Amino acid sequence: MPRTAATESFKFNHTMIRIKDPKVSLPFYMDTLGMDLLSEQNMGDFTLYFLGYDHDGIADLPAEQRAKARFNREGILELTHNHGTESDSSFQGYASGNADPGRGFGHIAITVQNIEEACARFESLGVPFKKRLTDGKMRHIAFILDPDGYWVEIVPGALTL
Amino acid sequence: MPRTAATESFKFNHTMIRIKDPKVSLPFYMDTLGMDLLSEQNMGDFTLYFLGYDHDGIADLPAEQRAKARFNREGILELTHNHGTESDSSFQGYASGNADPGRGFGHIAITVQNIEEACARFESLGVPFKKRLTDGKMRHIAFILDPDGYWVEIVPGALTL
Repeated sequence: MPRTAATESFKFNHTMIRIKDPKVSLPFYMDTLGMDLLSEQNMGDFTLYFLGYDHDGIADLPAEQRAKARFNREGILELTHNHGTESDSSFQGYASGNADPGRGFGHIAITVQNIEEACARFESLGVPFKKRLTDGKMRHIAFILDPDGYWVEIVPGALTL
Repeated sequence: MPRTAATESFKFNHTMIRIKDPKVSLPFYMDTLGMDLLSEQNMGDFTLYFLGYDHDGIADLPAEQRAKARFNREGILELTHNHGTESDSSFQGYASGNADPGRGFGHIAITVQNIEEACARFESLGVPFKKRLTDGKMRHIAFILDPDGYWVEIVPGALTL
Protein backbone atom coordinates (compact mmCIF):
# COMPACT_ATOMS: atom_id res chain seq x y z
CA MET A 1 0.00 0.00 0.00
CA PRO A 2 1.49 3.35 -0.98
CA ARG A 3 2.51 5.43 1.98
CA THR A 4 1.87 8.72 0.15
CA ALA A 5 0.46 9.76 -3.22
CA ALA A 6 3.84 11.26 -4.19
CA THR A 7 5.54 7.86 -4.07
CA GLU A 8 2.68 5.47 -4.87
CA SER A 9 4.06 4.60 -8.32
CA PHE A 10 7.60 3.90 -7.07
CA LYS A 11 9.23 0.49 -7.49
CA PHE A 12 12.66 -0.82 -6.51
CA ASN A 13 13.60 -1.73 -10.05
CA HIS A 14 17.23 -2.82 -10.06
CA THR A 15 20.66 -3.13 -8.48
CA MET A 16 23.78 -2.51 -10.56
CA ILE A 17 27.17 -4.15 -10.07
CA ARG A 18 30.22 -4.06 -12.36
CA ILE A 19 31.61 -7.29 -13.75
CA LYS A 20 35.02 -8.09 -15.22
CA ASP A 21 33.96 -10.60 -17.88
CA PRO A 22 30.45 -11.32 -19.17
CA LYS A 23 31.64 -14.63 -20.62
CA VAL A 24 32.10 -15.79 -17.03
CA SER A 25 29.40 -13.82 -15.22
CA LEU A 26 26.50 -14.48 -17.59
CA PRO A 27 26.76 -18.28 -17.23
CA PHE A 28 26.92 -17.83 -13.44
CA TYR A 29 23.79 -15.67 -13.24
CA MET A 30 21.88 -17.46 -16.00
CA ASP A 31 22.82 -21.11 -15.56
CA THR A 32 23.93 -21.43 -11.93
CA LEU A 33 21.36 -18.97 -10.56
CA GLY A 34 18.79 -19.42 -13.32
CA MET A 35 18.13 -15.80 -14.23
CA ASP A 36 16.93 -14.71 -17.67
CA LEU A 37 18.70 -12.10 -19.79
CA LEU A 38 15.99 -9.51 -20.32
CA SER A 39 18.03 -6.89 -22.17
CA GLU A 40 21.56 -6.29 -23.43
CA GLN A 41 22.68 -2.79 -24.41
CA ASN A 42 26.01 -2.01 -25.99
CA MET A 43 26.78 1.58 -24.99
CA GLY A 44 30.10 1.85 -26.84
CA ASP A 45 32.73 1.60 -24.11
CA PHE A 46 30.55 -0.61 -21.95
CA THR A 47 27.68 -3.04 -22.18
CA LEU A 48 24.73 -3.32 -19.79
CA TYR A 49 23.11 -6.69 -19.13
CA PHE A 50 19.73 -6.68 -17.39
CA LEU A 51 18.82 -10.00 -15.79
CA GLY A 52 15.94 -11.22 -13.70
CA TYR A 53 13.68 -14.17 -12.98
CA ASP A 54 11.20 -13.80 -15.79
CA HIS A 55 8.03 -14.65 -13.86
CA ASP A 56 5.84 -12.81 -16.38
CA GLY A 57 7.39 -13.96 -19.64
CA ILE A 58 8.67 -10.53 -20.65
CA ALA A 59 11.70 -12.08 -22.41
CA ASP A 60 9.25 -13.20 -25.10
CA LEU A 61 7.86 -9.72 -25.79
CA PRO A 62 8.93 -7.59 -28.78
CA ALA A 63 12.05 -5.54 -27.94
CA GLU A 64 10.32 -2.26 -27.18
CA GLN A 65 7.69 -3.79 -24.90
CA ARG A 66 10.35 -5.90 -23.25
CA ALA A 67 12.46 -2.84 -22.40
CA LYS A 68 9.44 -1.07 -20.95
CA ALA A 69 8.33 -4.14 -19.00
CA ARG A 70 11.68 -4.55 -17.32
CA PHE A 71 11.53 -0.99 -15.99
CA ASN A 72 8.09 -1.65 -14.54
CA ARG A 73 8.92 -4.55 -12.29
CA GLU A 74 11.20 -5.26 -9.34
CA GLY A 75 14.04 -7.72 -8.84
CA ILE A 76 16.26 -6.81 -11.79
CA LEU A 77 20.05 -7.17 -11.69
CA GLU A 78 22.08 -4.89 -13.95
CA LEU A 79 25.61 -6.05 -14.79
CA THR A 80 27.93 -3.42 -16.24
CA HIS A 81 30.87 -4.61 -18.31
CA ASN A 82 33.49 -1.97 -19.04
CA HIS A 83 35.04 -3.30 -22.23
CA GLY A 84 38.58 -4.54 -21.88
CA THR A 85 38.70 -5.51 -18.20
CA GLU A 86 38.33 -9.15 -19.18
CA SER A 87 41.70 -9.14 -20.94
CA ASP A 88 43.57 -6.43 -19.00
CA SER A 89 46.30 -8.10 -16.94
CA SER A 90 46.71 -4.93 -14.85
CA PHE A 91 43.01 -4.84 -13.87
CA GLN A 92 42.82 -5.24 -10.11
CA GLY A 93 39.29 -6.60 -9.97
CA TYR A 94 36.23 -5.08 -8.33
CA ALA A 95 35.65 -4.58 -4.63
CA SER A 96 33.09 -6.89 -3.06
CA GLY A 97 32.12 -4.12 -0.63
CA ASN A 98 32.89 -6.33 2.34
CA ALA A 99 36.46 -5.30 3.16
CA ASP A 100 38.25 -2.01 3.77
CA PRO A 101 38.91 0.05 1.79
CA GLY A 102 35.69 -0.24 -0.12
CA ARG A 103 33.27 -1.46 2.53
CA GLY A 104 29.68 -0.43 1.84
CA PHE A 105 27.61 -2.70 -0.38
CA GLY A 106 27.19 -6.11 1.21
CA HIS A 107 25.47 -8.66 -1.00
CA ILE A 108 22.55 -9.62 -3.13
CA ALA A 109 20.30 -12.44 -1.94
CA ILE A 110 18.44 -15.20 -3.75
CA THR A 111 15.48 -16.95 -2.15
CA VAL A 112 15.23 -20.69 -2.85
CA GLN A 113 12.54 -23.09 -1.69
CA ASN A 114 14.85 -25.98 -0.80
CA ILE A 115 18.14 -24.60 0.46
CA GLU A 116 19.80 -27.97 1.11
CA GLU A 117 19.11 -29.05 -2.46
CA ALA A 118 20.18 -25.69 -3.86
CA CYS A 119 23.47 -25.70 -1.92
CA ALA A 120 24.21 -29.31 -2.88
CA ARG A 121 23.73 -28.30 -6.51
CA PHE A 122 26.07 -25.30 -6.11
CA GLU A 123 28.69 -27.66 -4.60
CA SER A 124 28.31 -30.06 -7.51
CA LEU A 125 28.76 -27.15 -9.95
CA GLY A 126 31.97 -26.10 -8.19
CA VAL A 127 30.63 -22.74 -6.99
CA PRO A 128 32.86 -21.25 -4.26
CA PHE A 129 31.20 -20.70 -0.91
CA LYS A 130 31.84 -17.83 1.46
CA LYS A 131 29.76 -19.62 4.10
CA ARG A 132 28.27 -23.08 3.85
CA LEU A 133 25.05 -23.95 5.69
CA THR A 134 27.20 -25.84 8.19
CA ASP A 135 29.60 -22.92 8.85
CA GLY A 136 29.17 -20.51 11.74
CA LYS A 137 26.08 -19.92 13.81
CA MET A 138 23.50 -19.14 11.15
CA ARG A 139 22.78 -22.63 9.83
CA HIS A 140 19.76 -21.63 7.78
CA ILE A 141 21.55 -19.41 5.25
CA ALA A 142 24.60 -19.70 2.98
CA PHE A 143 26.77 -17.33 1.00
CA ILE A 144 28.27 -18.19 -2.37
CA LEU A 145 30.67 -16.03 -4.40
CA ASP A 146 29.98 -14.75 -7.88
CA PRO A 147 32.86 -14.69 -10.43
CA ASP A 148 33.97 -11.19 -9.31
CA GLY A 149 33.85 -12.15 -5.63
CA TYR A 150 30.55 -10.44 -4.81
CA TRP A 151 28.70 -12.22 -2.03
CA VAL A 152 25.39 -13.86 -2.96
CA GLU A 153 23.30 -14.88 0.02
CA ILE A 154 21.10 -17.94 -0.35
CA VAL A 155 17.97 -17.67 1.78
CA PRO A 156 15.28 -20.30 2.31
CA GLY A 157 11.80 -19.24 1.23
CA ALA A 158 10.35 -21.01 4.24
CA LEU A 159 12.46 -18.97 6.64
CA THR A 160 10.69 -17.31 9.54
CA LEU A 161 12.61 -15.09 11.94
CA MET B 1 9.22 -18.84 -16.94
CA PRO B 2 11.79 -20.95 -15.13
CA ARG B 3 14.76 -21.85 -17.28
CA THR B 4 15.36 -25.16 -15.46
CA ALA B 5 13.61 -27.13 -12.74
CA ALA B 6 16.61 -26.71 -10.44
CA THR B 7 16.15 -22.95 -10.30
CA GLU B 8 12.41 -22.55 -10.88
CA SER B 9 11.73 -21.47 -7.28
CA PHE B 10 14.50 -18.87 -7.21
CA LYS B 11 13.78 -15.18 -6.61
CA PHE B 12 16.05 -12.14 -6.40
CA ASN B 13 14.98 -11.28 -2.88
CA HIS B 14 17.16 -8.44 -1.64
CA THR B 15 20.19 -6.16 -1.87
CA MET B 16 22.14 -5.26 1.26
CA ILE B 17 24.02 -2.02 1.88
CA ARG B 18 25.55 -0.73 5.12
CA ILE B 19 24.37 2.57 6.56
CA LYS B 20 26.01 4.88 9.08
CA ASP B 21 22.89 6.13 10.87
CA PRO B 22 19.36 4.72 10.66
CA LYS B 23 17.96 7.98 12.08
CA VAL B 24 19.01 9.59 8.82
CA SER B 25 18.67 6.69 6.37
CA LEU B 26 15.23 5.44 7.41
CA PRO B 27 13.55 8.80 6.76
CA PHE B 28 15.30 8.94 3.37
CA TYR B 29 14.14 5.50 2.27
CA MET B 30 10.71 5.67 3.92
CA ASP B 31 9.66 9.28 3.45
CA THR B 32 11.67 10.55 0.49
CA LEU B 33 11.52 7.26 -1.47
CA GLY B 34 8.29 5.97 0.10
CA MET B 35 9.39 2.46 1.09
CA ASP B 36 7.79 0.54 3.94
CA LEU B 37 9.75 -0.94 6.84
CA LEU B 38 8.86 -4.63 6.63
CA SER B 39 11.13 -5.93 9.36
CA GLU B 40 13.68 -4.71 11.90
CA GLN B 41 16.03 -7.17 13.61
CA ASN B 42 18.41 -6.23 16.39
CA MET B 43 21.28 -8.71 16.14
CA GLY B 44 23.28 -7.37 19.07
CA ASP B 45 26.14 -5.44 17.53
CA PHE B 46 24.11 -4.52 14.48
CA THR B 47 20.54 -4.03 13.36
CA LEU B 48 19.03 -5.09 10.04
CA TYR B 49 16.24 -3.08 8.46
CA PHE B 50 14.31 -4.68 5.60
CA LEU B 51 12.43 -2.21 3.42
CA GLY B 52 10.35 -2.49 0.30
CA TYR B 53 7.35 -1.14 -1.53
CA ASP B 54 4.59 -3.06 0.17
CA HIS B 55 2.44 -3.81 -2.85
CA ASP B 56 0.81 -6.80 -1.13
CA GLY B 57 0.18 -5.37 2.32
CA ILE B 58 2.61 -7.68 4.09
CA ALA B 59 3.45 -4.98 6.65
CA ASP B 60 0.00 -5.64 8.14
CA LEU B 61 0.53 -9.37 8.64
CA PRO B 62 1.38 -10.93 12.02
CA ALA B 63 5.16 -10.90 12.63
CA GLU B 64 5.87 -14.50 11.64
CA GLN B 65 3.88 -14.36 8.39
CA ARG B 66 5.41 -10.98 7.63
CA ALA B 67 8.96 -12.35 7.98
CA LYS B 68 8.14 -15.25 5.70
CA ALA B 69 6.39 -13.05 3.15
CA ARG B 70 9.34 -10.73 2.82
CA PHE B 71 11.60 -13.67 1.92
CA ASN B 72 9.17 -14.79 -0.78
CA ARG B 73 9.09 -11.65 -2.85
CA GLU B 74 11.54 -9.52 -4.81
CA GLY B 75 12.56 -5.88 -4.49
CA ILE B 76 13.66 -5.81 -0.86
CA LEU B 77 16.39 -3.47 0.41
CA GLU B 78 18.32 -4.56 3.51
CA LEU B 79 20.07 -1.79 5.44
CA THR B 80 22.72 -2.93 7.94
CA HIS B 81 23.56 -0.59 10.80
CA ASN B 82 26.69 -1.49 12.73
CA HIS B 83 25.98 0.09 16.09
CA GLY B 84 28.17 3.05 16.95
CA THR B 85 29.08 4.34 13.49
CA GLU B 86 26.50 7.09 13.83
CA SER B 87 28.43 8.70 16.73
CA ASP B 88 32.02 7.61 15.92
CA SER B 89 33.96 10.70 14.83
CA SER B 90 36.74 8.48 13.41
CA PHE B 91 34.32 6.56 11.16
CA GLN B 92 35.35 7.22 7.56
CA GLY B 93 31.99 6.48 5.99
CA TYR B 94 31.08 3.76 3.52
CA ALA B 95 32.27 3.46 -0.06
CA SER B 96 29.66 4.21 -2.72
CA GLY B 97 31.29 1.65 -4.99
CA ASN B 98 31.80 4.23 -7.72
CA ALA B 99 35.39 5.37 -7.03
CA ASP B 100 38.73 3.62 -6.57
CA PRO B 101 39.60 1.99 -4.28
CA GLY B 102 36.29 0.32 -3.76
CA ARG B 103 34.75 0.37 -7.21
CA GLY B 104 32.32 -2.48 -7.80
CA PHE B 105 28.72 -1.93 -6.74
CA GLY B 106 27.16 0.86 -8.74
CA HIS B 107 23.70 1.86 -7.62
CA ILE B 108 20.16 0.88 -6.84
CA ALA B 109 17.37 2.18 -9.08
CA ILE B 110 13.82 3.31 -8.40
CA THR B 111 11.23 3.38 -11.17
CA VAL B 112 8.80 6.29 -11.02
CA GLN B 113 5.89 7.02 -13.35
CA ASN B 114 6.44 10.76 -13.64
CA ILE B 115 10.15 11.50 -13.45
CA GLU B 116 9.85 15.28 -13.82
CA GLU B 117 7.43 15.43 -10.88
CA ALA B 118 9.53 13.01 -8.83
CA CYS B 119 12.73 14.99 -9.40
CA ALA B 120 11.03 18.31 -8.65
CA ARG B 121 9.86 16.80 -5.36
CA PHE B 122 13.38 15.58 -4.53
CA GLU B 123 14.68 19.12 -5.20
CA SER B 124 12.04 20.62 -2.93
CA LEU B 125 13.04 18.15 -0.19
CA GLY B 126 16.70 19.17 -0.51
CA VAL B 127 17.91 15.77 -1.75
CA PRO B 128 21.41 16.00 -3.27
CA PHE B 129 21.66 15.04 -6.93
CA LYS B 130 24.57 13.24 -8.56
CA LYS B 131 22.99 13.91 -11.95
CA ARG B 132 19.93 15.99 -12.66
CA LEU B 133 17.70 15.24 -15.64
CA THR B 134 19.25 18.26 -17.35
CA ASP B 135 22.87 17.14 -16.76
CA GLY B 136 24.89 15.19 -19.33
CA LYS B 137 23.60 13.31 -22.30
CA MET B 138 21.05 10.98 -20.72
CA ARG B 139 18.17 13.38 -20.16
CA HIS B 140 15.66 10.70 -19.28
CA ILE B 141 17.28 9.50 -16.02
CA ALA B 142 18.61 11.11 -12.84
CA PHE B 143 20.79 10.05 -9.94
CA ILE B 144 20.24 11.20 -6.37
CA LEU B 145 22.46 10.42 -3.38
CA ASP B 146 21.34 8.60 -0.29
CA PRO B 147 22.61 9.80 3.14
CA ASP B 148 25.73 7.58 2.89
CA GLY B 149 26.51 8.73 -0.64
CA TYR B 150 25.19 5.63 -2.42
CA TRP B 151 23.87 6.45 -5.87
CA VAL B 152 20.13 5.98 -6.42
CA GLU B 153 19.11 6.05 -10.06
CA ILE B 154 15.66 7.41 -10.87
CA VAL B 155 14.21 5.74 -13.96
CA PRO B 156 10.94 6.59 -15.72
CA GLY B 157 8.45 3.72 -15.90
CA ALA B 158 7.52 4.78 -19.41
CA LEU B 159 11.11 4.44 -20.62
CA THR B 160 11.71 2.42 -23.74
CA LEU B 161 15.25 1.84 -24.99
